Amino acid sequence: MGVSVPPPGSVGQVELQMASLFTEAEPLVLANGEKLGPVEVAFETYGSLNERRDNAVFILHALTGDAHAAGYHAGDARPGWWDNLIGPGKPLDTDRFFVICANLLGGCQGTTGPSSINPATGTPFGLGFPQLTVADLVEVHRGLLRHLGISRLLAALGGSLGGMQALQWGLSYPEEVANGVVVAASSRLTAQNIAFSAVARRAIMTDPNFLGGDYVSQETNPDVGLAIARMMAHITYLSEDALTEKFGREPHPDSREPGFGIDFAVESYLDHQGQVFLGRFDALSYLYLSRVMDYFDPFSTPTSAALVTQAPVKWLVMSFDTDWRFGTEHSRRIVRRLELAEQPVTFREIQSPWGHDSFLLEVPSYHATLRAFLDRALVEVSQ
Amino acid sequence: MGVSVPPPGSVGQVELQMASLFTEAEPLVLANGEKLGPVEVAFETYGSLNERRDNAVFILHALTGDAHAAGYHAGDARPGWWDNLIGPGKPLDTDRFFVICANLLGGCQGTTGPSSINPATGTPFGLGFPQLTVADLVEVHRGLLRHLGISRLLAALGGSLGGMQALQWGLSYPEEVANGVVVAASSRLTAQNIAFSAVARRAIMTDPNFLGGDYVSQETNPDVGLAIARMMAHITYLSEDALTEKFGREPHPDSREPGFGIDFAVESYLDHQGQVFLGRFDALSYLYLSRVMDYFDPFSTPTSAALVTQAPVKWLVMSFDTDWRFGTEHSRRIVRRLELAEQPVTFREIQSPWGHDSFLLEVPSYHATLRAFLDRALVEVSQ
Repeated sequence: MGVSVPPPGSVGQVELQMASLFTEAEPLVLANGEKLGPVEVAFETYGSLNERRDNAVFILHALTGDAHAAGYHAGDARPGWWDNLIGPGKPLDTDRFFVICANLLGGCQGTTGPSSINPATGTPFGLGFPQLTVADLVEVHRGLLRHLGISRLLAALGGSLGGMQALQWGLSYPEEVANGVVVAASSRLTAQNIAFSAVARRAIMTDPNFLGGDYVSQETNPDVGLAIARMMAHITYLSEDALTEKFGREPHPDSREPGFGIDFAVESYLDHQGQVFLGRFDALSYLYLSRVMDYFDPFSTPTSAALVTQAPVKWLVMSFDTDWRFGTEHSRRIVRRLELAEQPVTFREIQSPWGHDSFLLEVPSYHATLRAFLDRALVEVSQ
Repeated sequence: MGVSVPPPGSVGQVELQMASLFTEAEPLVLANGEKLGPVEVAFETYGSLNERRDNAVFILHALTGDAHAAGYHAGDARPGWWDNLIGPGKPLDTDRFFVICANLLGGCQGTTGPSSINPATGTPFGLGFPQLTVADLVEVHRGLLRHLGISRLLAALGGSLGGMQALQWGLSYPEEVANGVVVAASSRLTAQNIAFSAVARRAIMTDPNFLGGDYVSQETNPDVGLAIARMMAHITYLSEDALTEKFGREPHPDSREPGFGIDFAVESYLDHQGQVFLGRFDALSYLYLSRVMDYFDPFSTPTSAALVTQAPVKWLVMSFDTDWRFGTEHSRRIVRRLELAEQPVTFREIQSPWGHDSFLLEVPSYHATLRAFLDRALVEVSQ
């Protein structure tokens, strides 16, 4: 089943690595004062760290991403989620860059999250897991960076929630981030953004198998609610035109007469997206990480504004013209705020029919812009 | 609690009326060949039918509407859902027009629907209720019209699914409809439109209390799923800017610290919309009537195109610039198709910040346009 000969431009076979960061004695102190330790972190790296240790690019993943951004796990036929961007000769050229991607704190793909075992009790955290912030996610990434012996990133780079982490990192610790790339992200969710997430959380938490968040120890899963959340999210990830182009009003091939099953092709697509999601994602992580996004508002605190003014971070902010989840207005707001803080910002609105999902896709002008920005970054750091 | 003195411009106290249409011997024959009879229809009327019986305006309601469009039921403090439009001196001036509004076939506010008792079995229809089309809804309205002794409408008028019925009525029976008013409607849902309804239906049907549609006889209700459906729908009824204007990122007053309850004002709004909906709407009706909308595609059949060419219906089509459920493109398509059939069409895109919900609101240029169109219609019929 697996890929024995990886295609050209692939980083080839990769393995998930684990790091145990922080300790019970020296825990991670969250923004709300709560403490976590140890924190297990799952991560992958592609390419090699150079001798000057100045070619590291940290990939920050989105709400439902994971550490497996590129290459192939043994036996897998499909590569990591951002494989079109990462590899020899690709914009994130692994012949030149050392690329790191880690599963987020609060996630469910190896890094400590709400469904992990709480060492203090021997049972899953469940809803006893602390509420997180984007700043907390960044603190764990910083711990991993220290663990890898790197003191400064060539770039922090991410889309959607990933872009929020890149933004937060550069705002809070400009000395650690030479360049920040923020794609299809937001510095402040709108009421509509929050509303969609609220309905998704409602579907998860009212699933009878949610069991107040104790489903892990009961060996069940709120699959029905999680699938509904995912189906709804997928509507917002694509532009209306993209859904029309892909599915239009095509009937599903198995549909014989009107009913309440899968009559239209678009219903089959949503159903499929909901079902495949269940095999790879955890409902509690969905709750925690979606809430993290709701509260993200980094420019509201005078602290970060003060930090910004001393920061040499060079920013690239990109939006997609058909993205209606975090559309261009969200990116423009980030740009305005960075410019108010006298930060150097390059902004591009990329034309792409695919809506929010575009940040995951091989959109030529998007990749070309990224490539040019990162090439320039590498030249500058080498001088 | 009730309104003892109705405000000026009100039609005052009104009562729901009932008509039993069709019979077991002469049933309603649905578009798919299935038969229903008798069909109970709940309706209201406002104003008086004139001697020439040519001043009747039929209001077609939307997905979750009902027959109570104007005035006050005894003891109620709030008037019907389109009271801002209907009454003495209002655009639907009840001193001049005879206004009829009936609960839809498949509904749950008095007219026969899937939660009604099937006379053949003595138990609720449930999912045994036949699938409907907009044409079927219109057939029942026509039965009511005959029952009232009216052969031709001055106007058929509705918003959203109501506009679809007005369109279908005028296309199928142009001799019965002098004027058709189609507001914020669609002649063909997009994949995105269908997708939202699909997720809503999924939430309803996976609620453990749905019981395969037998919840009525089990004296329970899929309240959790129906509330989720309604919450999601409300996101699509308002423009993103309207949600921002109403709620922004305001915290809910009772919210103390981040959690998974109602932290933001917009979450409280959605929760409230979901809860109040449960008291007045039926989950099976939601399934049936939303599916009716998915399949609506009146211009796909050559039959109606043929009918259109002989029709003297005068059309008013209106959209709202911030409506992203059935935006202006949907209305433009209706206009193009009517124009291709050489129908007289007036089209207006109304500026309103409130999105799809605008059709229910007192938007001045919207009401003024309606008033002018109906005044002209009344003058023409009187000549």
